[in-house]
Amino acid sequence: RGLNTMFIMMNQARLAVGVQGVAMADRATQHAAAYAAERRQGHAEGYEKGEMAPIIAHADVRRTILTMRAMTQAARAICLVTARELDKSHRLPDERERQAAAHMAALLTPIAKAFSTDIACEVASMGVQVHGGMGFVEETGAAQYYRDARILPIYEGTNGIQAMDLVMRKLPLLDGAVVQRYIKELQKTADDVAASNQPEFGAMGPRLREAVASLGEATRWMGEMLVSKPQASLASATPYLRLFGLAAGGSYLAKGALEMARDAEGNGDAVMLARFFAENLVTAAPGLAQTVMTGADAILDVAPDRLSV
Amino acid sequence: RGLNTMFIMMNQARLAVGVQGVAMADRATQHAAAYAAERRQGHAEGYEKGEMAPIIAHADVRRTILTMRAMTQAARAICLVTARELDKSHRLPDERERQAAAHMAALLTPIAKAFSTDIACEVASMGVQVHGGMGFVEETGAAQYYRDARILPIYEGTNGIQAMDLVMRKLPLLDGAVVQRYIKELQKTADDVAASNQPEFGAMGPRLREAVASLGEATRWMGEMLVSKPQASLASATPYLRLFGLAAGGSYLAKGALEMARDAEGNGDAVMLARFFAENLVTAAPGLAQTVMTGADAILDVAPDRLSV
Repeated sequence: RGLNTMFIMMNQARLAVGVQGVAMADRATQHAAAYAAERRQGHAEGYEKGEMAPIIAHADVRRTILTMRAMTQAARAICLVTARELDKSHRLPDERERQAAAHMAALLTPIAKAFSTDIACEVASMGVQVHGGMGFVEETGAAQYYRDARILPIYEGTNGIQAMDLVMRKLPLLDGAVVQRYIKELQKTADDVAASNQPEFGAMGPRLREAVASLGEATRWMGEMLVSKPQASLASATPYLRLFGLAAGGSYLAKGALEMARDAEGNGDAVMLARFFAENLVTAAPGLAQTVMTGADAILDVAPDRLSV
Repeated sequence: RGLNTMFIMMNQARLAVGVQGVAMADRATQHAAAYAAERRQGHAEGYEKGEMAPIIAHADVRRTILTMRAMTQAARAICLVTARELDKSHRLPDERERQAAAHMAALLTPIAKAFSTDIACEVASMGVQVHGGMGFVEETGAAQYYRDARILPIYEGTNGIQAMDLVMRKLPLLDGAVVQRYIKELQKTADDVAASNQPEFGAMGPRLREAVASLGEATRWMGEMLVSKPQASLASATPYLRLFGLAAGGSYLAKGALEMARDAEGNGDAVMLARFFAENLVTAAPGLAQTVMTGADAILDVAPDRLSV
């Protein structure tokens, strides 16, 4: 039972690496936001003619900082839910509930690891960009996050391995019932958001519904391929994991926004980040589903020895 | 006329930095493909049981190498066309044709610079990933491409500045007639691909048509916003530039594939890369158009001082 025991250790370690990704992304974001509030360059709306505006006032820099914050928060939520399910799998009194939580943790672990560490690299890269030339040189520290984050998608199982684990081992759990139950949960959140009719939610409802529908379709396709053409499911595993992360992360941010919207005092960053994430990043979901479902043959038709350059 | 003169120099320099991006991406790709053909790990289809396969035989690694090659080739094509238009703007005998070429070069320069250098960073990052832990340490050289490429989106005008230049200065050229003529060219290529009915083109035709339609819609939206709400066009400039690069790059790869398909001998990598790019990467185009057209308010509704963490 050595391999089984190792996988228990590995799953904990994979979540820990995901959390490392969240931590590094958050640090890079704080650093970049502070620099952008201080560094002045160019003119921006709301500043006097001739006065240099802090670069955070420029719409494109605001997009970058919001992307960094929203991606980090989405990854954090995925890691938190994975940790909660792991705790439940150990501590719940009911054996069946422990088992259900263990399955949920097993499903989410590759996403917690791979999505969080992929976005850590992307966020650290944006952090360098916000700093400009000052980020490329060593003084500010932004370049160090960029370098250090790069190990995270590699160790404790590369993110390619996580994607294969998700598709080959986790989707088939209980004949697909685990992932189906999970997608229903995401669907419920998307429906709640759409039904809430909060004007400050913008297009959050429709975007999440499209993303969950895309994840559902891509998951069905994966189920068919696992039976009829496993190589295709392997070839599409990486964009599938990204799609999964966007739908899950968008859903968790939306849940937070729904909670905050009920609290008249607290309607703050949660709504801002959930809406931004849905309207600007979750929009990638239908295209990713299309890549998953129609892109694999363009890979499998190519013999490996044609790929050397 | 000093500023005018400087911009002539800057446009040449911007194209040169785009070409630097292509060069660095290509070098990172060659390096990774060579390593992936040599390094053995795990079992893959077509290899004997118990025999370790070179990692390039794994579908997910093939996806990575194909992504690297296709993105690099798309960026190369955009830079080449920009250079051709610049040459024509200097050398054509007819003054009106020189002017038309100058406008086309002006339109494409920010895309040549920003798209090529963005993908250079992404490709260099994938190069590290293909190398695994050996890429993170210094021995193989993959980490150096990753670090060195990072300056390219920053210098000679950050890629955010390129996106603003594209939207604020280039889209309005001749009241939008320059970009409209360009989109018609892309449309023609997409139609030619769809009409060619080559089975080995896969879904290239429909994917390119969707991408060009998305670019057309997003361009119309930009035109309206430039008049009614310029801050919105600035907020969406970066995803718009990415959309532009995908549609343009996909179209050039397809043109190459059409030429090669006519040549019975040469139907090789050109078709392989064009199809992969269309089916796996150009799929992002409709989602990017949606981000452009509905994502800006989620940025503009946030006061800059709410963004510090």
